[in-house]
Amino acid sequence: MIPINVIEEISIITPSKIVMLVIDGLGGLPEVSSGLTELEIARKPYINELAQKSICGLIDPVGPGITPGSGPGHLALFGYNPLEFTIGRGVLEALGIGFDLTKNDVAARGNFCTVDDSGLITDRRAGRITTEKCTELCKLLSKIKLEGADLFVWPVREHRFMLVLRSKTLSPNVEDTDPQRLGVAPKPAVATSSEAEQTAKLINSFVKEARKILSEHHPANMILLRGFSKLPDIPSMNEIYKLTPAAIAVYPMYKGLAKLLGMKIYSVDGGFREELKVLSDCFAQHDFFYIHVKHADTAGEDGDFPRKVKVIEEVDSAMPLLLNLKPDVIVITGDHSTPAMLKMHSWHPVPVMLYSQWCRPDSAKEFSESACVTGGLGRLHSTDIMTLAMANALKLTKFGA
Amino acid sequence: MIPINVIEEISIITPSKIVMLVIDGLGGLPEVSSGLTELEIARKPYINELAQKSICGLIDPVGPGITPGSGPGHLALFGYNPLEFTIGRGVLEALGIGFDLTKNDVAARGNFCTVDDSGLITDRRAGRITTEKCTELCKLLSKIKLEGADLFVWPVREHRFMLVLRSKTLSPNVEDTDPQRLGVAPKPAVATSSEAEQTAKLINSFVKEARKILSEHHPANMILLRGFSKLPDIPSMNEIYKLTPAAIAVYPMYKGLAKLLGMKIYSVDGGFREELKVLSDCFAQHDFFYIHVKHADTAGEDGDFPRKVKVIEEVDSAMPLLLNLKPDVIVITGDHSTPAMLKMHSWHPVPVMLYSQWCRPDSAKEFSESACVTGGLGRLHSTDIMTLAMANALKLTKFGA
Repeated sequence: MIPINVIEEISIITPSKIVMLVIDGLGGLPEVSSGLTELEIARKPYINELAQKSICGLIDPVGPGITPGSGPGHLALFGYNPLEFTIGRGVLEALGIGFDLTKNDVAARGNFCTVDDSGLITDRRAGRITTEKCTELCKLLSKIKLEGADLFVWPVREHRFMLVLRSKTLSPNVEDTDPQRLGVAPKPAVATSSEAEQTAKLINSFVKEARKILSEHHPANMILLRGFSKLPDIPSMNEIYKLTPAAIAVYPMYKGLAKLLGMKIYSVDGGFREELKVLSDCFAQHDFFYIHVKHADTAGEDGDFPRKVKVIEEVDSAMPLLLNLKPDVIVITGDHSTPAMLKMHSWHPVPVMLYSQWCRPDSAKEFSESACVTGGLGRLHSTDIMTLAMANALKLTKFGA
Repeated sequence: MIPINVIEEISIITPSKIVMLVIDGLGGLPEVSSGLTELEIARKPYINELAQKSICGLIDPVGPGITPGSGPGHLALFGYNPLEFTIGRGVLEALGIGFDLTKNDVAARGNFCTVDDSGLITDRRAGRITTEKCTELCKLLSKIKLEGADLFVWPVREHRFMLVLRSKTLSPNVEDTDPQRLGVAPKPAVATSSEAEQTAKLINSFVKEARKILSEHHPANMILLRGFSKLPDIPSMNEIYKLTPAAIAVYPMYKGLAKLLGMKIYSVDGGFREELKVLSDCFAQHDFFYIHVKHADTAGEDGDFPRKVKVIEEVDSAMPLLLNLKPDVIVITGDHSTPAMLKMHSWHPVPVMLYSQWCRPDSAKEFSESACVTGGLGRLHSTDIMTLAMANALKLTKFGA
């Protein structure tokens, strides 16, 4: 992969436009009867026609064999090495529920849990209380007052919540209080560096107060915290690529991540067609567009092969709306694979196709895992895709004389 | 390649089993008449059938164009970057003859050589004396006494021997005494760092005594030493992968290398069938099995194309014994190429096939260099194979949230 500072040096502003369509969890595995994957079986005439004018390949978001979370998967697509730029669990949880993190915030992922009379953990998930109960408890915990820091407790889902402490003097260098096993007490927050000592103290005060408040709310009578983290120091896409990027997405985590990279966020309530309507509306104002399609991943995680096929077919049927805008570069890919056969994110490399007038098309006649194996891009790191998109948009000048 | 600490974080213990079959020097070059390589010409119905359910590709042990020794070739297959983890020539020589190195040992590779009356080298290999003569001379040199260190002189083959000095205060930072040319005197051992000065002194005493003893043994009347080295500080496969690995091999060097990585060694006297018998016996006790087949490399180095073909066919004929154990992941590959046409190790990327229920099989209908070119793995670094084997055994959790 090309170092970011090299891209910064050679990127230029041009009127050309790049659309990157990320179908979440796109890559799949063949089902037994047909021997074909979700993408291979899907009827997708528009995408296949575009594939014939495109260059295809397979990409590894982190590396061969590594199953990426959504964070690393997306960072790689935008050209950020996910081994270098990591986003803490707490920050990701905050982004995921649309919490507006500031530079002064330390975020943590929280679990309501159950402890017995001796304070030992008997259930790390408090019997998976309902989201309604979680919301009620978060409201109670929000009332805790800490000296020297504001705090925010937001529900996520079931037993999960987000804790954010806000103050200029906080540090995320604090160990998890979650021991990740039963029969032991929650651990105290311990600073791993001296500048985090105040933060650890604040967290311990919060936990102490929380325990008092929760004592009447069995099974959710205690909390566990992990993944203390701050917004990473990450250069914006404008700094690196000189782009004016837009993100068109439905789900908070993807919008949060895009915001982190300096994209202008266009929230959409609806499906891919609604996203393309927004694309059309803002097409004049940006030169890079990230469009996120969530439900291929959801179907994959549910093990619902036919539903994943259907999501891909729905994307295809709306493609004319995208094609009519005539972007100079169109990339279609995923942030990782989520084969319905596996019901989870997987390590399998993700199919990618890149269309532009200058792409040097290959022999791939359709967009599929098998066609991508013999595609002209070969097997690449996902971080290479952004550079290739920039090049195909003629937005990169020569390196060296 | 993925940093080892990342793998450490995401690896988990599961009951699934990985078999890695390393056919030494597997990759070849086409013979003129048929235009086919050793692997392509070999009749291997079982392997080809498995290849149809596998994902295939080509791997570079060190990098394109680099011909690896057996050490780097194997390290890469086990996921250790051979450019980062180097094993000194002395240590490799000791491992190769089954010497049980300790952390306090400095090992060197030795040559018996011939010097003239003025002490100038006239033959760096002492006319390639017989191994019997070498053994006799090593016994004599073993009697030398050094102050502050034990010493071991073991024969290797013909003019080659191993010298090991043992003491807590030794350092391997000593220059070779072998000038690698004729007409000059052997060089004194020179310390390249201050903590090696005692070691250099001990080596020079040893060489002085050796010369006295050998004066009557022309043409082996002097010695040359090179590759002073200690056991490298290398994390075990258990530390990185949480595996309980086993090595099934015949030859000492491969067993020594495997031991270095923390594998349990199963010594075998015989061929692949005997190795598979051992595999079957210990199959319940481990989750990773490295099986080494030496003679493809030997045949390649001898330039014996038909014999290399035969070794591959013999491996194939015994495959049912392996398949019957139903390992979750089977990798078949080599540590490097040794084309019979070249009669030496070579830089050509090595064919690899990986079978698992989750491998996303490709269009390769047989296991051969040409089929692997279009395989679904593409061209990878050999170090990626271990990560992929772990992933396919579902022994790696997600990276990042």
